This record gives sequence, structure tokens and C-alpha cells, in this order.
Amino acid sequence: MPSPSEAARQYSRAQAETFQAELFEMLRIPSLSGDPAHADDMRRMADWLADHMRQIGLTNVAAMPTAGYPVVYGEWLGAGPDKPTVLVYGHYDVVPALLEDGWDTPPFEPAVKGGKVYARGATDNKGQLFIHVKALEAYLKTAGSAPVNVKFLIEGEEEVSSPNLTPFIKAHLDLLKADVCVISDTSMRTIDEPAITHSLRGMTYIEIELEGPKEDLHSGLWGGAAHNPALALAEILGKLYNPDHTIAVPGFYDDVVPLTPAERTMIAKTDLSEAQYRQATGVPALWGDARYTIRERISARPTLDINGLWSGWSGPGPKTIVPARAGAKLSSRLVGNQDPDRIYQLLKTYIEAITPPTVKVEVRLLTTGKPALIPFDLPEMQAAARAFEKGWGHAPVFTRGGGSIPVVADIYDLMKIPVVMMGYGLDTDGLHSPNEHYSLEMFQRGIETAIVYLEELAELPR
Amino acid sequence: MPSPSEAARQYSRAQAETFQAELFEMLRIPSLSGDPAHADDMRRMADWLADHMRQIGLTNVAAMPTAGYPVVYGEWLGAGPDKPTVLVYGHYDVVPALLEDGWDTPPFEPAVKGGKVYARGATDNKGQLFIHVKALEAYLKTAGSAPVNVKFLIEGEEEVSSPNLTPFIKAHLDLLKADVCVISDTSMRTIDEPAITHSLRGMTYIEIELEGPKEDLHSGLWGGAAHNPALALAEILGKLYNPDHTIAVPGFYDDVVPLTPAERTMIAKTDLSEAQYRQATGVPALWGDARYTIRERISARPTLDINGLWSGWSGPGPKTIVPARAGAKLSSRLVGNQDPDRIYQLLKTYIEAITPPTVKVEVRLLTTGKPALIPFDLPEMQAAARAFEKGWGHAPVFTRGGGSIPVVADIYDLMKIPVVMMGYGLDTDGLHSPNEHYSLEMFQRGIETAIVYLEELAELPR
Repeated sequence: MPSPSEAARQYSRAQAETFQAELFEMLRIPSLSGDPAHADDMRRMADWLADHMRQIGLTNVAAMPTAGYPVVYGEWLGAGPDKPTVLVYGHYDVVPALLEDGWDTPPFEPAVKGGKVYARGATDNKGQLFIHVKALEAYLKTAGSAPVNVKFLIEGEEEVSSPNLTPFIKAHLDLLKADVCVISDTSMRTIDEPAITHSLRGMTYIEIELEGPKEDLHSGLWGGAAHNPALALAEILGKLYNPDHTIAVPGFYDDVVPLTPAERTMIAKTDLSEAQYRQATGVPALWGDARYTIRERISARPTLDINGLWSGWSGPGPKTIVPARAGAKLSSRLVGNQDPDRIYQLLKTYIEAITPPTVKVEVRLLTTGKPALIPFDLPEMQAAARAFEKGWGHAPVFTRGGGSIPVVADIYDLMKIPVVMMGYGLDTDGLHSPNEHYSLEMFQRGIETAIVYLEELAELPR
Repeated sequence: MPSPSEAARQYSRAQAETFQAELFEMLRIPSLSGDPAHADDMRRMADWLADHMRQIGLTNVAAMPTAGYPVVYGEWLGAGPDKPTVLVYGHYDVVPALLEDGWDTPPFEPAVKGGKVYARGATDNKGQLFIHVKALEAYLKTAGSAPVNVKFLIEGEEEVSSPNLTPFIKAHLDLLKADVCVISDTSMRTIDEPAITHSLRGMTYIEIELEGPKEDLHSGLWGGAAHNPALALAEILGKLYNPDHTIAVPGFYDDVVPLTPAERTMIAKTDLSEAQYRQATGVPALWGDARYTIRERISARPTLDINGLWSGWSGPGPKTIVPARAGAKLSSRLVGNQDPDRIYQLLKTYIEAITPPTVKVEVRLLTTGKPALIPFDLPEMQAAARAFEKGWGHAPVFTRGGGSIPVVADIYDLMKIPVVMMGYGLDTDGLHSPNEHYSLEMFQRGIETAIVYLEELAELPR
């Protein structure tokens, strides 16, 4: 007779087609948290998840209201108080996607090609969060119980930096009480190199807007004596970096914890070659702070990126105006111990200081998220490493993630429990890009690894 | 019994409401030459004009095909070969307008408020070109004839810099043969200060686009080692100007004819104060080359403006990407004797030279137009001055226009006839801006001045 985890794994293989079909249902819902036009889709997505959790046997399930979009909560506590409780975090929201951005197929109509499903949210985060739902289902449908208690915390605002999650966690510390938190929202380089992420970058995201004339001016009648706001914006943005590609904002690097030689050695294990980076991204040449390796630049060092620009006329043909306004979205990826609010103040002060009196500037804070750094010698981390060995078939490396999952710092700080980031995505999945996709083989291996991890956690000394 | 011109003027006053209603019909047609989605409207506008010309008694009327939009031609040659022939130029196309740009009323639903009609094209150029149609009609409906022969050349591509007009003129020099060309597509400072424009700026309009990654990248996974194309664009655009607000493109000023002290004295007569410029445009402070007065900067000196910027995400909320592309529309207003094609080469060479190897750049030429400078002591110019005195009620000043009407240089060069720019607009009409409008009083005074001008031309020694 197979062990409970082996029986659950067998069940997950037998049910693979059903599990995939259920995932595709999720992917068809355009749950864009950043665009108010999709508010109904967000509610539909939350309800779908809650209904699904009830169907597979979770209790106390609810789409719990917040000041923004609801948090979907559900639990299975049948293992009893003597067993550990795992809190699974995920997010049901996605970033925008339009066919004309360069998608080969409509972003909210899942298309399977070459063993991958193409859709917005396929890897980030619907596919990965669903792995844990299906792992629990596999135990419940075979043994009738799981080796540990499981709670789900699935939010709908991760892609807008989780403005309402910290208050939610603070208000529900008892409900969410757990011994370890597991999150699958990170990625590995290749299918044979699983990775556990022990560090994430934080974020300060701002929007700046310049105003010159009260309305667009005819450039022939008025041009030559008005400071063009688009030019002024370019002049300001052109001063964000020093010639050596370090960020020119005074004080920006003050709180960055220097990388130790030991850390750099560990990071070097997963470094990218220039050719690999160019191949993956398509850039004609590398760029950045030459004192750091590529992997360090994209995971262990802070950044300041322009995420969007707009001014005047960008449609077809010419339009001869001095635009009234010009704007940019800017975001900084932060590392320990940079404080997102302080970075906002530094950015605002600098931008205001270099804005000439010929235009008016407004600097608006959109979102913030703290960076996180978690020791990888904790037992819950090592249990995750064993789960990868047994369930995935390869031992993982511990890596720093360049992305931001604001909840990680919050859970680690507020709940005082380890956060284990077992990423089941690939670096090349195209998350946030056109043609985002997710490997169906990795979906299956992820479910099996998650099944094994629950068993490994049950065996930890308490 | 009133003179023919007096009878025509009386008729124009009696018919004022009808004339206005006809103008509003034109204004309801969204004839945007720069947007292919409006191709049908362009055809509808050309047909409307041709039909109208036939109705009032013009002959040989046709919407004549070009490689782009048709040229509407019509003539009345009843004055006979002993009398001069006037060629009236105008354009039936308009620049884009969207209600959400800041219009108080829909831009293609003419609204009369405070004696002005608000609509895209009201002053530029439908209202002004229609003045000449109505002036001729007034003669034909009263005396049964006009004092001079009249030909109309109304194009549909002025707002996209008339790419097909030069070939059209070259191919139809006999058809268009005339003694003088009159154009009403310029403006005066106040209703009591009519102006005849004897100089116009030319134009070189380009679009530049940078490409970095092959598609938008997740800024957390890849940010820090890719040169953000929006940043690279800002860095390039930030190098267009020197700190003293002169244009940094090498060779840009080489062919500019210096202003003489006499010209500067004439220009000073219509100078603007800093307060007037700020009041008209709403800018918080003046800007530009401090060696020149405001009027010189906006009419007699070349410019380089950013007309549009685009990159990445400009919708609501944050999106954490390194954009794949960033672009800008740039246009330069040129003065004698700058050559638009040479300026394009200088811009392209400079931009390519300052683009770093971390991104790819493409510089595309959209349109060009030559600058024009016409002596104001010609008899046809002086006849126009008398027409303003008699028909408008005020003697005009001769001024330089900051805008570009490419046909002026073409007609002057190709047809070897004087081009008289009798502008019937106001500087504050808001052309190319939201809430463009046209004074109905000026529409009426324009018709009467145009009536008198035909009589003045008939009396010139031949």
C-alpha cells in the first residue's frame, strides 16, 4: 500500500487533465487589480476561488472584504493542534495584458502549445498558487486527511503592491496563526535547478507629472519661449543616473547593507553570462553598475527604472504642439535595509530640486513594499530543500530574488514565522510580458513537491 | 446706388446667418488628415466643398485626386483676361481633437458662446478659407460678376505638411496660373490690429524610437542590467539643448540669416511682454534664448520641440516593467535659409551619435516644409493693406509668422507670384488646442475685407 504522500501523488497524476482544466478556468478571468474597469472580474475571480476551496473540503472559506479587493481565506485544520500549521500565501490578481502588446494568442484565452499554457497569470501567480490547492485536495481525496493543518491567504492586490494586506494581517493575527508560511511566486533558471528564494527586493513606486502651458500650444504660434514639459521631463530623468550607471539621488544608497564576500560567492553559483542575459532579454548590450556581477545587479542591488512615459501626441502622424503635460512612472527595487518611505522622500526631494521654475512638478507615491532577507539555515527551509529533492527530483539552490512580494516582509515581521519561497516558475516564463506561459510539467512536479513538503513539515521536531 | 463692392458687403451682412450655418456644416465633418480612420470624413469634406462651390456659381469644380487626399479646385473667370487672377489657397483638413483633451463641448459639434463658434477647424482653416468663398458669392449674387478672376486651391493635407501639394502644383501650373495668391491662415493679436504675414517658419518633423529588450521585462527579474529604453530616451532628449537654451545639434544654426537691426525694430512693434505671454499660455515662467525678444523667439528664430513621448505603461496604477521601447515625436520650426532636409540629416546624425550601444535607435522623417520670406513692399501687399483699412477698419502691421504653411514657399518658388497672407484669426483662437474657436464678428469683417481686396486688386496697374 502506498504511503499517504505517494497515494496523493498518484492521485494528482491521474487527475492531471482535470487540474489543468480548472487552472484554465482561472486564467480566463481577467483579474487586473490595477485597472478599475476590471473590478467585476476581480470579484468573480475571488468568488471562483472561494467556491473551489469549499468544493474540495476546506472550511471557514470566505472572500473577506478589505478596503480594496477581498482576501480569499480558507482552512483545513483536521491534522489537529499537535501538528504544525502551514499558511499558504498567493495572489489571484494579474498585471495588464493587451493582445496588441505582442501576444500571439489572446491573453485571457489559455492556449496550450508545446506543453505550456499561454495566458496572463499562468505562472504569476494563478498556476503557482493552485499547486498548493491541488496538493491539499490530493491528500483529502485519498487519505481523507493531510499530514499538517493548512490555511490559505490569497490576496487580490499583489500587483499593486498589496496596499491593504498589512492591515488585514494585523487585524487577523489569530485567524492566520501558523508555524510556517509557504509562498510559490518565484522562479528557477531551468527545470533541473529548483531554487528557494531567501531574499526579495522591496519597492518604491512613484509617478511624476510636469505641467507647463495650461493647455497644448500650437508650436508655431508659441514655440520658442515656453519650456516644453516633455523636454523638461527628459532633462530631469536624464539626471537620475550618474555616468557610471549608479543612481544620482543623494542618499539613495545610504542604508544598503554591503554584500559580504561569502554572500557574493553564493550568488556567483547562479550567475548569468552576458550571453545568457542578452539571449533571455534581447538587449543589444549589457548595462549597469560594473562593480557588480549580472546576478548581483538584478537581485541583490537596488534599481531605479522608468516604467512608463507619456506626453502630447503619440498617435499616427505629426501633431505640432507644445504639450501641456508630461509624465513618467518610476519605480525603485530596494534591498535590505532600504526603507521604502525614506526612498520616496529622497526621490521627491531630488526631483523637486532639479525641476526648473519654468514648469510645475507633482511627485505622487503609488505604492511601497519592504525588502526581505530570511536565514536559509532554518529547519523549515531545509525541509523545503528535502521536498524538492524527493518531489521534484533535484536539490535546490538558495537564491536572492530580484522581484518584490511585499507580504514576505510583512509576514516575517508581523507573524514572526519563517517564510519559505518555493518557486515553481521558470525565469523565462515571461511574467509581466506578452506571451506569459507556464509549463504543464512544472505544474505537475510542483503539486507533487508541495505534497511532499507537507509531509516533511509534519516530521519536524516541534 | 451702391458700388459693386458696397452691394456685395451689404449682401454679406444680410446673409450672415446663412453663411454661419454653412460654416457650421463644414465644422461638423471631422476631417482629420493625420488619422487614417477618418479617410471617409476627408472625402466627405472635399465633396461638400466642391458641391458648395458649384452651387454658388463656380465652374470647372472638382475634387482632384492626388497620391493622398484630394485637392478641391474651382474657378470663376468671368472678369476676363484683361483683369488679374487671384488664387485663393486654403485647407479643409484639421488636427486631431478629443473631448477628453479638455474641450468644454464636443469638438465636432459647433457651439456658439459669446459671439464665438467653438469647434476644431473653426479658425484653422475652415472659417478663414470660407471667407473667400463667401466674398466671391457676394459679388456673384449682387453684381453678377466679380472685379477679378478667382481660382480656389483647397488642399486636404496641410496639417500633415502637404506631402502631395508640390507635385500637384508642378503638374497644374497652367490651371493654377494667377497674378497673386492670397492665403488666410494666420492671425492678429487683437481685433483692432490686423496683420499681414510676410514670413513663415518651415519645419522638419521626425519620430525617434528606441528598442532595448525584445519585449517588456519584469523589472524585478531583469532590472539592473538592462538599459531602460525610456531612460536612454530621456538621456538623449536631455542633450538636445545647451544650458543657455540654444539647440545643441551641431550645424543647426549654420544657415540661419541673422536678423538685421531694421528687422528687429519692426518686430519690436508687435513684441509681447512676459506677462502677456504667460497670460496667453499659462506657463509659470518664460524660457528660451535670452539674446532674443519673445516675439523674435516665437516667430523669427528656429525651435526644436518634443511633440509627444511614449513608453511602457501610462494607464492607471503601477506596472513594474522595463519597457521594450520608448519613442518621441520631435519637430523643428525653421527660418530662412535653413533647409528642412539638411536639418533632418543633422538631427539624425546627432541622435544616432549620442545613442549608446545599449539600445537600438531608429530616426524616421515624418514631414518637411520650407521657410518663406516675402518682401512687403510689393503692390499686391500694399493693396492688401488698403483693403484692411477700408474693409476691416484698421491699417495692418506686417509681421513674421511663427507657424508653417508649406504651400507659401512652394507657390512663391514655383509660380513666381506674390503670396499675400491676410490672416483673419486671433492669436488666442486656440488653434491646435482644446476649445479652438472663431469670432463670428471677425468672420463677417473678413468677408467684407476680402470683398474690398478683390476690388483693390482689379485697380492695380498691370
